[in-house]
Amino acid sequence: MSNQNPVFIPGPTNIPDRLRLAMQVQTQDHRAPDFVNTLAPVLEGTKKVFGSASGQIITFPASGTGGWEAAVTNTLSPGDTVLVARYGMFSHRWIDLCQRHGLDVRIIECAWGSGAPADQFAKALAADTAHQIRAVLVTHNETATGVRSDISAVRKAMDASDHPAMLFVDCVSSLASMPFAFDDWGVDIAVSGSQKGFMLATGMAILCVSPKALAAIETAKLPRTFFDFKDMMNANASGGFPYTPPLQLIYGMRESLNMLFEEGLDNVYARHTRLAEGVRKATAAWGLDLVAQSPELYSDTVSAIYVPEGFDSNALTDHAFNAYGVSFGVGLGEMNGKAFRIGHLGSLTDVMVLSGLATIEMAMADLNYPIDLGSGVSAAQEYFRSGRTTPMKTAA
Amino acid sequence: MSNQNPVFIPGPTNIPDRLRLAMQVQTQDHRAPDFVNTLAPVLEGTKKVFGSASGQIITFPASGTGGWEAAVTNTLSPGDTVLVARYGMFSHRWIDLCQRHGLDVRIIECAWGSGAPADQFAKALAADTAHQIRAVLVTHNETATGVRSDISAVRKAMDASDHPAMLFVDCVSSLASMPFAFDDWGVDIAVSGSQKGFMLATGMAILCVSPKALAAIETAKLPRTFFDFKDMMNANASGGFPYTPPLQLIYGMRESLNMLFEEGLDNVYARHTRLAEGVRKATAAWGLDLVAQSPELYSDTVSAIYVPEGFDSNALTDHAFNAYGVSFGVGLGEMNGKAFRIGHLGSLTDVMVLSGLATIEMAMADLNYPIDLGSGVSAAQEYFRSGRTTPMKTAA
Amino acid sequence: MSNQNPVFIPGPTNIPDRLRLAMQVQTQDHRAPDFVNTLAPVLEGTKKVFGSASGQIITFPASGTGGWEAAVTNTLSPGDTVLVARYGMFSHRWIDLCQRHGLDVRIIECAWGSGAPADQFAKALAADTAHQIRAVLVTHNETATGVRSDISAVRKAMDASDHPAMLFVDCVSSLASMPFAFDDWGVDIAVSGSQKGFMLATGMAILCVSPKALAAIETAKLPRTFFDFKDMMNANASGGFPYTPPLQLIYGMRESLNMLFEEGLDNVYARHTRLAEGVRKATAAWGLDLVAQSPELYSDTVSAIYVPEGFDSNALTDHAFNAYGVSFGVGLGEMNGKAFRIGHLGSLTDVMVLSGLATIEMAMADLNYPIDLGSGVSAAQEYFRSGRTTPMKTAA
Amino acid sequence: MSNQNPVFIPGPTNIPDRLRLAMQVQTQDHRAPDFVNTLAPVLEGTKKVFGSASGQIITFPASGTGGWEAAVTNTLSPGDTVLVARYGMFSHRWIDLCQRHGLDVRIIECAWGSGAPADQFAKALAADTAHQIRAVLVTHNETATGVRSDISAVRKAMDASDHPAMLFVDCVSSLASMPFAFDDWGVDIAVSGSQKGFMLATGMAILCVSPKALAAIETAKLPRTFFDFKDMMNANASGGFPYTPPLQLIYGMRESLNMLFEEGLDNVYARHTRLAEGVRKATAAWGLDLVAQSPELYSDTVSAIYVPEGFDSNALTDHAFNAYGVSFGVGLGEMNGKAFRIGHLGSLTDVMVLSGLATIEMAMADLNYPIDLGSGVSAAQEYFRSGRTTPMKTAA
Repeated sequence: MSNQNPVFIPGPTNIPDRLRLAMQVQTQDHRAPDFVNTLAPVLEGTKKVFGSASGQIITFPASGTGGWEAAVTNTLSPGDTVLVARYGMFSHRWIDLCQRHGLDVRIIECAWGSGAPADQFAKALAADTAHQIRAVLVTHNETATGVRSDISAVRKAMDASDHPAMLFVDCVSSLASMPFAFDDWGVDIAVSGSQKGFMLATGMAILCVSPKALAAIETAKLPRTFFDFKDMMNANASGGFPYTPPLQLIYGMRESLNMLFEEGLDNVYARHTRLAEGVRKATAAWGLDLVAQSPELYSDTVSAIYVPEGFDSNALTDHAFNAYGVSFGVGLGEMNGKAFRIGHLGSLTDVMVLSGLATIEMAMADLNYPIDLGSGVSAAQEYFRSGRTTPMKTAA
Repeated sequence: MSNQNPVFIPGPTNIPDRLRLAMQVQTQDHRAPDFVNTLAPVLEGTKKVFGSASGQIITFPASGTGGWEAAVTNTLSPGDTVLVARYGMFSHRWIDLCQRHGLDVRIIECAWGSGAPADQFAKALAADTAHQIRAVLVTHNETATGVRSDISAVRKAMDASDHPAMLFVDCVSSLASMPFAFDDWGVDIAVSGSQKGFMLATGMAILCVSPKALAAIETAKLPRTFFDFKDMMNANASGGFPYTPPLQLIYGMRESLNMLFEEGLDNVYARHTRLAEGVRKATAAWGLDLVAQSPELYSDTVSAIYVPEGFDSNALTDHAFNAYGVSFGVGLGEMNGKAFRIGHLGSLTDVMVLSGLATIEMAMADLNYPIDLGSGVSAAQEYFRSGRTTPMKTAA
Repeated sequence: MSNQNPVFIPGPTNIPDRLRLAMQVQTQDHRAPDFVNTLAPVLEGTKKVFGSASGQIITFPASGTGGWEAAVTNTLSPGDTVLVARYGMFSHRWIDLCQRHGLDVRIIECAWGSGAPADQFAKALAADTAHQIRAVLVTHNETATGVRSDISAVRKAMDASDHPAMLFVDCVSSLASMPFAFDDWGVDIAVSGSQKGFMLATGMAILCVSPKALAAIETAKLPRTFFDFKDMMNANASGGFPYTPPLQLIYGMRESLNMLFEEGLDNVYARHTRLAEGVRKATAAWGLDLVAQSPELYSDTVSAIYVPEGFDSNALTDHAFNAYGVSFGVGLGEMNGKAFRIGHLGSLTDVMVLSGLATIEMAMADLNYPIDLGSGVSAAQEYFRSGRTTPMKTAA
Repeated sequence: MSNQNPVFIPGPTNIPDRLRLAMQVQTQDHRAPDFVNTLAPVLEGTKKVFGSASGQIITFPASGTGGWEAAVTNTLSPGDTVLVARYGMFSHRWIDLCQRHGLDVRIIECAWGSGAPADQFAKALAADTAHQIRAVLVTHNETATGVRSDISAVRKAMDASDHPAMLFVDCVSSLASMPFAFDDWGVDIAVSGSQKGFMLATGMAILCVSPKALAAIETAKLPRTFFDFKDMMNANASGGFPYTPPLQLIYGMRESLNMLFEEGLDNVYARHTRLAEGVRKATAAWGLDLVAQSPELYSDTVSAIYVPEGFDSNALTDHAFNAYGVSFGVGLGEMNGKAFRIGHLGSLTDVMVLSGLATIEMAMADLNYPIDLGSGVSAAQEYFRSGRTTPMKTAA
């Protein structure tokens, strides 16, 4: 069936044993007290991970894409204007979703590898004196390019012109791995999922919603039922769901929060930074370039790495899988064939990351890439060794 | 945490060990061959359970409600007319969903406990000479009342006036437990889920779609992205999903199909009939009445049973849970307080059903119901004994 | 593969989910701190279940039979005399083991269905003025006949003649289900296993050893290595095992103790008494007889029940398994064909026991036993209902 | 609780998911047909792994040490002479066991790092013209030193003087990882366990016994019951065990055999050779020495590696565990403090081995070992790359 090598795709991530066990729940009556008493603290704990006190957590049995749809349909009406920048596959897809829902999408086209263009947002918002723009949509961590955008800069851009638009943020591949400050950044809806930083199976969209966004429900005319915020909030308030809840994921979420809080969110973020920096040291040692254009854009959860001219990144990831049984992220969209990706988020240790680096290094050597075998691994080893103060084993 | 008593809610159902193991899948790259080779036969096998050769299986990481929404948004446009009968909680909810999506919903109000009114459908369709009605929506098994409707009669009603409307059927709590004949009944979209007859965790909406319904996609203007049929079909065709797939459920589905086919669908249906009949024998022995108005409406997956005048069904189900640790279905909607429900579907044996009957009997006696302790159990025992030819143990 | 019916054999018992999860442990280095820190509290907690403060817990990766062998080989020498009464299959097997190990076994033959004959022990010990008898061996709960013996009476018999013999007790099928008072009863070695009251997989012999028995090690000449007490105690003292430990069972044991202490040992015992009494009410209602000769001998973990003259108990248990998929205990040894057994120990609820009673009742009716269908179930229901004060669901 | 790093101790080994699932078996009646039908093919399949057609497989719920004890007590009598060479911890322990069982043990003392001295055996056997030596005991793979001995050479030494002694072989840490030829080598009893090459939990001793050894039972006077061959064979013949069987391990064994045969035993052996060779390349690159004295003695399942003069191997393994969360084997006995061990057996891939090498390399660098960081990893990478023909992913 499968070997025991970790995956290095940027999600779904490796599920630690503790969470695999937590999700092995026999069927319970979701209308009975056991479940009811489980749900409330899960919602409360999740808020902390978003960095929110005032937000409302809303989850759906769906993927992150469903979360995007929920954000849009609960707060907007056909014809409403939204402002988005396209700088990768996932911002592209969110744009597509908005267009299909009949929104007027003002798109700022950016190079893949760049991040959210706060200055251009500022300009567009300032120009929108009629306040037609109802929401600004930002992908916090563009999984396709390994770029983390500066949400607080976007917030500042919005504040600069005192624009009343809502701020929607896709944090699917950043939440619970990199710091997120829902309240401080003035986010109105943040959308995440169970299968990345939470280290669970795929199947739960997880949103945090501000009071301002909740107020927008009243006027939002896009049709919705499955993804209806109000139905979910009302049902949740009495411990239930408007339909059958994903029991296994709710129990998994409870244990995921336990794990995150036991390690400490700051330690979780620091671990991700360290793992990412190890991968970047290796990349530099190989003489390869990141897709992310500059250090302040580097993601701590995924690195997209250009293959040298004349090489095909798909051949590389195929070979790594076929010859060594290890999955890496393929190049998506514009990056197809040009870049491969190393996911380094979730339940991962230095040791596991080194195995990924050793593997892709062998695969590159097999395909005659101009790299020195071992160079990336030893650069990462050197980095991981230095300044270590706490044991790895708290990682999972 | 929990005891090992079975649940007798009409879903989610008791998950057999074999499927619990099948869903314990470590993360894989969903873009890699292992997953790709898994998906196709799962879709193919599922078609057999729907009784279809020409249909297209489409699944979403969602609940059955999501499946309803997918059915409607992919085939209809705002303002389109649909014809529905309301005879229980789930037909009610589907009506609500249609209304929220801006459809013109022609509702035939029926008594709870009755089934789909084929004759009234016939009349309404015959009167609709302009063919404004785009779809007829029917709940095959109304989980709230324990009523199974005759879909072939509805089809005949449609054929009688040669009406071109599509036929949408909710078979969430009937599929894989009671016979379903998608092709023979001329169904256009049938909607089910993973957590009932398939005995899996909640989280996957499962649809079968006819060529006629697929053709309707082209003109359907209701917005959709997460639930878009085309996106899913295109991605499935190359072995993938348009977003992260629910890996664990797909693998679970593969094993669920193995179990169903090993037992044999006809044996599965016969087992459900036998279990249901045992529950009905017990109900008669108690001197209680089913909500379902007549034998041809009796569901083989759930029985809704009226409590005697002056008793509160909620007190009964609460007591059964608190005193004996067993969950039964509460009375929903109009039946709230008036009826309790015994779910008898999925991975159940005679022996398990007897434990449920023994429990609710004790609970009724504790609350001074006018029943003879043991009467229901012995009636069911007598029935289960007679004419047994094959061993129970093949059940799961 | 298997259905979800409980088993009603007197062990191994139904494993609750919580313990199945607890035993799902990936390999760890058994010489590393994680394991070391786990073992000590497990040993300490186990002592409480034996009712001992002064005893030493010693476990081996083996079955209960291995525990018997360890008891004998660590404390006795070839030719040593032991006193035993034979009143069932397990006392018989222990005798056989002693004989194979070259001991001089003085056997008091008793009727199957009787218990340890304290008066005859008293006589034999009083007559042994030379104190040749080194140990008295008693089976606390004779699993073959459903007889619980009075250990404190045996102790009194020993004290009456101030006899220095050690007292060895087999409590494999009683410990953690019925009260055990190692210290108060003056037991020197008690032998149990993981697969009965502890509700775990088979594979761990669990012993409690008195200081007096530990002192006997010094002179004991029977050869031993795998089962050597000293090696195990020395290794345990530094957190290890003298060979690879059964990691999964040690972690399982930790959680089993948690479960037992959360429910409360007294509640566990009371639950077993209630379940057993329910079975006995049913037996009486059927008009059948227990093998146990009198009420003070009734076991709370297993009931052996005579089939009527002219019936074959093997045909009954075979039929129950083949027709209904439920396992009951066969008649062992002298009881082969004459009696069947219902195990009612471990992770069981009233509800589960009722399913067992309903099943064997159907099986008896199928085979034309002269019983009233439903009579046993309703007798047990009536009993289970009365005087209930706490919910069942704490059972597991 | 734990991270997801593999362990690199020489057993128990990393349990692959497939076997973790296979061992998750709910309690069954071990006297019922399901179990009976499972056991026979397991015993048959196990024979193939031993390389035997004529041997009898006998298993006990115990560790490998229990298997040694079973071998000795079933075939020998107090005072019998056995011939053994001591060249590591496990040969030492077997000697100790024989001595405790009152055997006359003729010991050939060898340097740790050497293997079974066929020439000295030949001399001793030739000198034993009275044929007092009843058995020659050999440790195939000495886990403490990483030495594999040549069993066929020992056989030749025995044949040279036509000596009738039996040949007992400890293959606990070699079977199912390195070739074993029970019949061709004329082995009489081979002893293994579940937790090494079979990749299962600890708890099952697995023996293969020749007709000649079975014949020796008749005269063997060492006491035994739990480990009695005859009891086990008789019970196995009718599908049972003489006491409660370790159900979970039997089912696990069934699946382990499936995995081994699917990969193909020759491929399993080749994989172990490749993994071991990778570790040896790394060792050479570090400039360190193996404890094994010469290449023909190199074990393919474990490498014992001397630390440089002035370093403490315990500090190294402690640091690797504490700083990086990875377990390596400590130096045992004479090697305590002088050598560490890398286990490379069971469910392992090139990729996993590289992570172990990267880790111990970092740990050595942290402790100022005179090695070049990355040197070992790149040597192994270079080796693993070359001549690869089949994908890794079949490994587990």
